[in-house]
Amino acid sequence: MSDVQFPNFSSKIDRPTSVKIQDFQRQGRLKHIIFGQQLTPLLMEKLCRSADKIRTMAKNPDGNAQLRNLLADKRAMLYFTQPSTRTFLSFMAACQILGITCNEVRDPKTSSEVKRESRTDSIRMFSSYFDVIIMRSQVEKFAEVCAYMMNELEEQEQRSVPIINAGAGSDEHPTQALLDMYTIFRSFNFESLSVNVSSELNQLKRRYPDLVSGPHQKTYLFCGDISRGRTVRSLATVLAQYPDVRMFFVSPDHPSLRLDSRLKQFLIGADVEVHEFASLDETIDGSPILSETDCFYMTRIQREHNTPEFESQLSQMDLSPFQLSLQRVAQLKSFAAILHPFPRDEVVGEIPPEVDRDPRAMYFRQARNGMWARAALLVHLFDASEDLFFAHSKSIERSV
Amino acid sequence: MSDVQFPNFSSKIDRPTSVKIQDFQRQGRLKHIIFGQQLTPLLMEKLCRSADKIRTMAKNPDGNAQLRNLLADKRAMLYFTQPSTRTFLSFMAACQILGITCNEVRDPKTSSEVKRESRTDSIRMFSSYFDVIIMRSQVEKFAEVCAYMMNELEEQEQRSVPIINAGAGSDEHPTQALLDMYTIFRSFNFESLSVNVSSELNQLKRRYPDLVSGPHQKTYLFCGDISRGRTVRSLATVLAQYPDVRMFFVSPDHPSLRLDSRLKQFLIGADVEVHEFASLDETIDGSPILSETDCFYMTRIQREHNTPEFESQLSQMDLSPFQLSLQRVAQLKSFAAILHPFPRDEVVGEIPPEVDRDPRAMYFRQARNGMWARAALLVHLFDASEDLFFAHSKSIERSV
Amino acid sequence: MSDVQFPNFSSKIDRPTSVKIQDFQRQGRLKHIIFGQQLTPLLMEKLCRSADKIRTMAKNPDGNAQLRNLLADKRAMLYFTQPSTRTFLSFMAACQILGITCNEVRDPKTSSEVKRESRTDSIRMFSSYFDVIIMRSQVEKFAEVCAYMMNELEEQEQRSVPIINAGAGSDEHPTQALLDMYTIFRSFNFESLSVNVSSELNQLKRRYPDLVSGPHQKTYLFCGDISRGRTVRSLATVLAQYPDVRMFFVSPDHPSLRLDSRLKQFLIGADVEVHEFASLDETIDGSPILSETDCFYMTRIQREHNTPEFESQLSQMDLSPFQLSLQRVAQLKSFAAILHPFPRDEVVGEIPPEVDRDPRAMYFRQARNGMWARAALLVHLFDASEDLFFAHSKSIERSV
Repeated sequence: MSDVQFPNFSSKIDRPTSVKIQDFQRQGRLKHIIFGQQLTPLLMEKLCRSADKIRTMAKNPDGNAQLRNLLADKRAMLYFTQPSTRTFLSFMAACQILGITCNEVRDPKTSSEVKRESRTDSIRMFSSYFDVIIMRSQVEKFAEVCAYMMNELEEQEQRSVPIINAGAGSDEHPTQALLDMYTIFRSFNFESLSVNVSSELNQLKRRYPDLVSGPHQKTYLFCGDISRGRTVRSLATVLAQYPDVRMFFVSPDHPSLRLDSRLKQFLIGADVEVHEFASLDETIDGSPILSETDCFYMTRIQREHNTPEFESQLSQMDLSPFQLSLQRVAQLKSFAAILHPFPRDEVVGEIPPEVDRDPRAMYFRQARNGMWARAALLVHLFDASEDLFFAHSKSIERSV
Repeated sequence: MSDVQFPNFSSKIDRPTSVKIQDFQRQGRLKHIIFGQQLTPLLMEKLCRSADKIRTMAKNPDGNAQLRNLLADKRAMLYFTQPSTRTFLSFMAACQILGITCNEVRDPKTSSEVKRESRTDSIRMFSSYFDVIIMRSQVEKFAEVCAYMMNELEEQEQRSVPIINAGAGSDEHPTQALLDMYTIFRSFNFESLSVNVSSELNQLKRRYPDLVSGPHQKTYLFCGDISRGRTVRSLATVLAQYPDVRMFFVSPDHPSLRLDSRLKQFLIGADVEVHEFASLDETIDGSPILSETDCFYMTRIQREHNTPEFESQLSQMDLSPFQLSLQRVAQLKSFAAILHPFPRDEVVGEIPPEVDRDPRAMYFRQARNGMWARAALLVHLFDASEDLFFAHSKSIERSV
Repeated sequence: MSDVQFPNFSSKIDRPTSVKIQDFQRQGRLKHIIFGQQLTPLLMEKLCRSADKIRTMAKNPDGNAQLRNLLADKRAMLYFTQPSTRTFLSFMAACQILGITCNEVRDPKTSSEVKRESRTDSIRMFSSYFDVIIMRSQVEKFAEVCAYMMNELEEQEQRSVPIINAGAGSDEHPTQALLDMYTIFRSFNFESLSVNVSSELNQLKRRYPDLVSGPHQKTYLFCGDISRGRTVRSLATVLAQYPDVRMFFVSPDHPSLRLDSRLKQFLIGADVEVHEFASLDETIDGSPILSETDCFYMTRIQREHNTPEFESQLSQMDLSPFQLSLQRVAQLKSFAAILHPFPRDEVVGEIPPEVDRDPRAMYFRQARNGMWARAALLVHLFDASEDLFFAHSKSIERSV
């Protein structure tokens, strides 16, 4: 596939991901973000800390003003030739928080493509005007190839800018994994804000004695469109790096929806305990899987790319075993986090609106977290973390 | 109608407007702006004063810099799925004057709707990223419903942002009424800038003894597309709050164009003196209606939503009695204000270009006033009037 | 032609360009930029100096912050109803560098045109909200007409803003000529940065004894789509103002591609030495034309406006004599500059990617230069050159 589109880069594309990601780092820092696997536990911790600081500073005008100053000399290109509202707006907001000015190309038929400009010429042109390229394209591996091209320019001492994969093609969606992970970190933080009372964690431990703080030693339930959802693939890949993780995959038993064998093998190889189910009401070792779940990750069953044949099969499926009713929410642990990468399907109703008021429903906060987490990523890519920490400590001093 | 689209909100929608508008205020200040009736005389006076200050400050770079600082920590979503150039750009400019960063959704087929996301989920998603939602949509009552949703979130102590109705569907267009009113206030201000000479008002009183300053005790002539123009409906509703107002409605005598009975009854109930005419050359009590007019409000006869049947009727109508020729302009009072919400129809020529040079032609200033008035509204919604007044007084000190 | 679209302005349009350009100046400074001929050698020198300062200041955050402050009180309208990616983004970036906020209209079917608003009403409406209008439209002479309209408003003491022609219709493309000239100035500057070693010019003189610094006394080779490329017309027109200029035009011998007689007569009348060739391998006075070339200006053969008849003729042409292979690059002078207005055609390959690494390949820098040159133009139009020079000297002091 890849060599047809980008023959010059096929030898690079054909390497295993674990090897490729080394091309996208510089002295322990990311130059580009292309794969979820780049989000190591160490990096995640850094990014979460930065995101927390950005979130806190954004609460008051003074902190906001300092944030807007942080990367005010940068200009971003949001190259979104594959339609997207949510990810696009989230990146826009993240840039604006940091003072980055935004530019966009959204029409896949830009004039330059009509004029038979090569895709790589277009991207290099963008890199002449802008300081980072955030891209979502239908072209397979395009973000990856752009990162290689930028690396070549860097070697030639030419202008070279970071590439951010914002969910290209059917590939991964690393920044979705980033915001999912940030939401998980925040949900499993359990830190009481006041120090004199016993912490939330200690209180929870009375009921859940083995509970620990952090993403490890947890059970993650993924429900819905397991096979085709790139968000599931990206997030599961990142979570697999943490010790003692258990994953439940709950989906209709259909080859287009259930866990694919490649991801399954990867997870098992990474010591994840993997279980598959065909209903949310199933049990494991005698107890309901819902009551065992720490984090419930619901996904929408995608319809926009369906074949007519699969569409007709789907319309005859009973999807009720995969819906999160209030009755099922009641079975979850008291501290469990319900996530959904959104949008949710109004017709199917995989999470009906009445669940929104449950304190465990995290999906709207998750969307807002995307903004903070992506801002933290931009700060990291532009090597401005130190500036952020300095601005944060100043803003605390001032507010005291 | 409403209950089909938004069944959860139908009981709220079905209340009278005078009751509903109480939901959109907080301690005497607007939380959302949905209806023209929210523009009370008291609020109009506040907004006009703010708009004047913004206009003055924008004249020099220092004042401009202070304005840009005023709401620089805010991000706006301009959700304009119904096409609009003028209102859209006017809001963009208003935001930019105040330092608000702008984001937009203009394509009605956004990816999320394709993915069957509910409209309210989309709007709540926007409210996760942005601080105000300015919306124009073809969906009836959508802005109103979004305001109710934001109120519910507020009650649940969730994130909730102001909603601005920028002319949704065939409903009202409150911010057009706002800028029309601001232009009327400025036109009927009659304050000479220099204090030693007798004021403009005193000079005018020699010819027009009953003339007073302000929108009251005036005759407003509305001409053209009376029935379908939401700008006429919104402005007339606001003006009806002022004492001793007379309104002339001049339009072809056709049910799709002439004053509809609902608005007529409302105006009469509000003590407005209402007269209808079928030509600009008619008289009242023996004198030409044009010579009685203080404010002439022309509108374009809309063609874009016409049925073929009405279009053919229209093409046979003689529209010349509704055109503002130079001869007719000459009959207006010397201080009269000619307004038009724009765009005007180049083919019909309801106001031919040769009128543009007449000092009474206010329509281009009216457009520019839209920018100042909308900026004033944003300052009000974000409760930043005090900051504006402080910045204004500082900028005056500095320029002295 | 013109009088059909804009009857009111036909007498102005029908004057010779040399007369018309006087309407677009104010006391030696440009008010509008419509024609390439406005870029006199004196103005070019000023703009290049400003562009250099902007480029230098943009290298560090402090300089960047000062640049962003320079025109932060201005709002631009980018009215690009003719599709364009490169020019549009380049102007966006130029505005953003100077703190100018950007607004855009890109859809030729804006709502106002649907509502039969006249084109001039639309532009005057933009001028109500924005401080400069940068326009590319398919409508012939539209930018020129807008400039006349703004002049009329100025005479009437109404609001009037500068108009920038960003390549309207098949007319000229003056800002492309501007950036081409800036790239030529930089390429033929030959100033060594360190003062103790002999300058680059002195070194080059050993091999090219007649070499001088600057655009004069040079040989320019234009290759490809000579007749239809407005960039060639605009650049050749500007270069014709410099003494001792020689131009080689290399194109297929076809009336749609070769030098048209009108431009040829203009150039000869301006004392340019003009030669035409049908292959890059031809010679002049016994030496290869490539070895005589100081600046090689390649263009893409446009296909998007071709008739089927011409398209079929084109597909049978041998285009290899017009391709810049590595072998042909090797014949160029050691300091020669290779330019291309971009995009280049990936299928035809008029400049194959392997040339990109040659140090004489200037086309990517040329694109980036467009950003600096357009920023310099904006500074000039807003009469902020003095502010720029002051900010530049401060930023130098601070960095010392």
